[in-house]
Amino acid sequence: MPVSSGNAAPCVDLNSDLGESFGRWVLGDDQALLALVTSANVACGFHAGDPSTLRRTCEQAAARRVVVGAQVGYPDLPGFGRRFLDMEPGELTDAVLYQIGALEALARVAGTPVSYVKPHGALYSAVVQHEMQAAAVVRAVKEYDPRLPVLGLPGSALLRHAADAGLRSVPEAFADRAYTPAGTLVSRREPGAVLHDPAEIASRVVRMVTEGHVVAVDGSVLRLAAESVCVHGDSPHAVAVARAVRTALEDAGVVLRAFTG
Amino acid sequence: MPVSSGNAAPCVDLNSDLGESFGRWVLGDDQALLALVTSANVACGFHAGDPSTLRRTCEQAAARRVVVGAQVGYPDLPGFGRRFLDMEPGELTDAVLYQIGALEALARVAGTPVSYVKPHGALYSAVVQHEMQAAAVVRAVKEYDPRLPVLGLPGSALLRHAADAGLRSVPEAFADRAYTPAGTLVSRREPGAVLHDPAEIASRVVRMVTEGHVVAVDGSVLRLAAESVCVHGDSPHAVAVARAVRTALEDAGVVLRAFTG
Amino acid sequence: MPVSSGNAAPCVDLNSDLGESFGRWVLGDDQALLALVTSANVACGFHAGDPSTLRRTCEQAAARRVVVGAQVGYPDLPGFGRRFLDMEPGELTDAVLYQIGALEALARVAGTPVSYVKPHGALYSAVVQHEMQAAAVVRAVKEYDPRLPVLGLPGSALLRHAADAGLRSVPEAFADRAYTPAGTLVSRREPGAVLHDPAEIASRVVRMVTEGHVVAVDGSVLRLAAESVCVHGDSPHAVAVARAVRTALEDAGVVLRAFTG
Amino acid sequence: MPVSSGNAAPCVDLNSDLGESFGRWVLGDDQALLALVTSANVACGFHAGDPSTLRRTCEQAAARRVVVGAQVGYPDLPGFGRRFLDMEPGELTDAVLYQIGALEALARVAGTPVSYVKPHGALYSAVVQHEMQAAAVVRAVKEYDPRLPVLGLPGSALLRHAADAGLRSVPEAFADRAYTPAGTLVSRREPGAVLHDPAEIASRVVRMVTEGHVVAVDGSVLRLAAESVCVHGDSPHAVAVARAVRTALEDAGVVLRAFTG
Repeated sequence: MPVSSGNAAPCVDLNSDLGESFGRWVLGDDQALLALVTSANVACGFHAGDPSTLRRTCEQAAARRVVVGAQVGYPDLPGFGRRFLDMEPGELTDAVLYQIGALEALARVAGTPVSYVKPHGALYSAVVQHEMQAAAVVRAVKEYDPRLPVLGLPGSALLRHAADAGLRSVPEAFADRAYTPAGTLVSRREPGAVLHDPAEIASRVVRMVTEGHVVAVDGSVLRLAAESVCVHGDSPHAVAVARAVRTALEDAGVVLRAFTG
Repeated sequence: MPVSSGNAAPCVDLNSDLGESFGRWVLGDDQALLALVTSANVACGFHAGDPSTLRRTCEQAAARRVVVGAQVGYPDLPGFGRRFLDMEPGELTDAVLYQIGALEALARVAGTPVSYVKPHGALYSAVVQHEMQAAAVVRAVKEYDPRLPVLGLPGSALLRHAADAGLRSVPEAFADRAYTPAGTLVSRREPGAVLHDPAEIASRVVRMVTEGHVVAVDGSVLRLAAESVCVHGDSPHAVAVARAVRTALEDAGVVLRAFTG
Repeated sequence: MPVSSGNAAPCVDLNSDLGESFGRWVLGDDQALLALVTSANVACGFHAGDPSTLRRTCEQAAARRVVVGAQVGYPDLPGFGRRFLDMEPGELTDAVLYQIGALEALARVAGTPVSYVKPHGALYSAVVQHEMQAAAVVRAVKEYDPRLPVLGLPGSALLRHAADAGLRSVPEAFADRAYTPAGTLVSRREPGAVLHDPAEIASRVVRMVTEGHVVAVDGSVLRLAAESVCVHGDSPHAVAVARAVRTALEDAGVVLRAFTG
Repeated sequence: MPVSSGNAAPCVDLNSDLGESFGRWVLGDDQALLALVTSANVACGFHAGDPSTLRRTCEQAAARRVVVGAQVGYPDLPGFGRRFLDMEPGELTDAVLYQIGALEALARVAGTPVSYVKPHGALYSAVVQHEMQAAAVVRAVKEYDPRLPVLGLPGSALLRHAADAGLRSVPEAFADRAYTPAGTLVSRREPGAVLHDPAEIASRVVRMVTEGHVVAVDGSVLRLAAESVCVHGDSPHAVAVARAVRTALEDAGVVLRAFTG
């Protein structure tokens, strides 16, 4: 039986990385994902996403009433933002501001604001523990608009700095990523980092949302309080996984709703 | 004696390309120029200008009450935006939106809005006659904020499209560039395209502003109605030229004032 | 009956653009194409292709004894090299040298030399008529290694400059592109620029190779003397087309052999 | 009196980072430096250096009989290769191969081969201790041409891996950089990382070369066996320093000669 306060049904946000095509190169099935998620982390051009892709993605999100967030990353197209880059705090703050502003221009024209910020890839991983980079990202969001929530890993330096700065910090869980006993993600460079079975992933997510638990790679049970669940969509298989997750949540009586709602 | 309506002193804006450093590479003496101009065309990262340079330039402009405009260009760092790139209208519109939004984020944090748009380099030259690219730039500005003026060459497709779209179109003159008899700029690839003598340039600008005339490369006299004069600042010499222009204008009783004022 | 000198079977080269993935972004089914073609135009990093993609593609080509050529392009990742860029001749020559050398390093390590040069995308189109850019590309090849053939459009400025410079110039035909009556390719921006029916394309190629003719968009018959036929491979459909072309040529008794052989 | 074997004069190589301009952005006085050094570490386009800059620098080096080496770096133009980037070994190996090959093409055309390899910036710092990146760089050099020496910090993982792989490993000293007691460079992010007084630097270098000693930041004396001394040239002051170093060495009877000679 779902944990809930009083008679209210439990609810959760589903977010996914979108707008990650670049020029001639298509990545992910954004249309399929936008039919499933409630929040779209739209790339901002530094690790992926050209201006027209950003616009089109925002238009499609707006058409489906999916909330748009800025998925900010390292300036590293060849590495897709998945390689740690040792940026100085000042330059990282400014790079994040640049990306949010760029996306905002295209989002506004598409009829939707930018409603939250989520770091991407290696930046996401870095700000779990890298205090200076975490503070730099938070500073950018606060300078840009202190009403914007920050989406990140529960227990991360990012969410702690965000909360300290008076920003709303939103913890998320990952549907298809393995967890260490410490509650961090197993690195993509490790075997078993990514789960593949849709049914297993879906039931795992239902447990996360309704019970607040997830089983780590060593079998230990972690407490996980997530307001949003991240699903991936960069392969036909990933779309199937996202669909299974959504269906399982709905079947469990969970309401899917953007965390910004 | 200056041409003026009634007893009012003639006035003009001085604009210059700023924020064109990139990472380790420094270009131009932005501080010196900001003491001389009334409008700063700040690069937006596509042909020049990294995020921290944009921010610092906007901060310095704000401190001196110099108006900030978005100097949008082709995505061509190795060519500094000085090579024509045959972009499709849609992708050009989106690229311009991206740049304006990116600069706006850093400008706002620096305490100043983006108050106008001016194309840079080969894009500037292209939109003199390239109808589709001119319309694409204008569309971006109109979609972003129809209150933003567009700065360009008198008689250009850009200014015509801007006016047709209901935007304020602001014609500018170039202090140190040679003009063809048709009123376009002599290409930088041609000899004599750039003038160098500060005194000659200064008196030329005074004539432009007070009489509305300029002498073309063939000796013919062009009518030139400019609300702004562009000065360059990417060398110590260029700063000296800009200073000579400002001093000569002030000595001629011309009031220097941002065209957005 | 195939046109041939004496009793020898007619022969032709099949070439395709390969190595056009970039980091996280996969493009084309290189493995499938390498089983069909005799020459691989490997991207060099300017319009597509990261270093590891170049190496892997060359290794796969070497394993299948497919000849490797340098597919040189404009420095334009977001535009995939498909937008004309007005480079100066000197900088274009140097950019081509840079690309050939970069690919050569990875090809040599993969066990194969770079055996020819073919311009990509908008550069390919430009050098049909742009004398300065055509000469600039030819100059690069001649400076790098005058024994390298240049692959291009019959009648193009590129092949003329190559021949004038003492390089071997190799005319090619396109399996799935429509021709203008003048023998140039219909622009990708035009409808009907690309043919899609595998059977139609295959019989068209057989006619090109055995009779030296192709039917242009206006129905006129062009004389087309091609030593190589370019097939595309950036979609599952394209691979099917390439397979149909190869099979039809073999069924018609045409020997498939690298033009450098 | 210089330490030397028998009556032979001591000799040393002077190397400097060159070819680091990029398009419109000029960095360093390459001509002045080429009159002073015996080896030129020419940038390869990833952290700095466009193709035409590479060519021109190699031409100028060849004209002065200065030996050309490949200064390979991270793909990070906005950070000038001065930020650690967590590249996988395979992609780093391929990136280094790409850069060496690209430079070689332009160097050969300029009349000189690439005669050694030296990592740049943050890559240089990383391979002091980062075993995987050090091995990846060495692997690239060995695959490209095992006769190429590798220039690096004495005691670094890079030089150890190079020696283990059968490459010649060449230790170098820095004229104007402060040393930690462990023999590594004080980070540029620390105060006092770079020395400025030409006379102090010059006498320091003479001591390094003739006695094999340098004084670390804590006053301790380090043993330093360097076959080459790195001087910087990216400011007028730096050229003055380089000149002072060369003059002091010549006055001390040291012969300046490329280490590859």
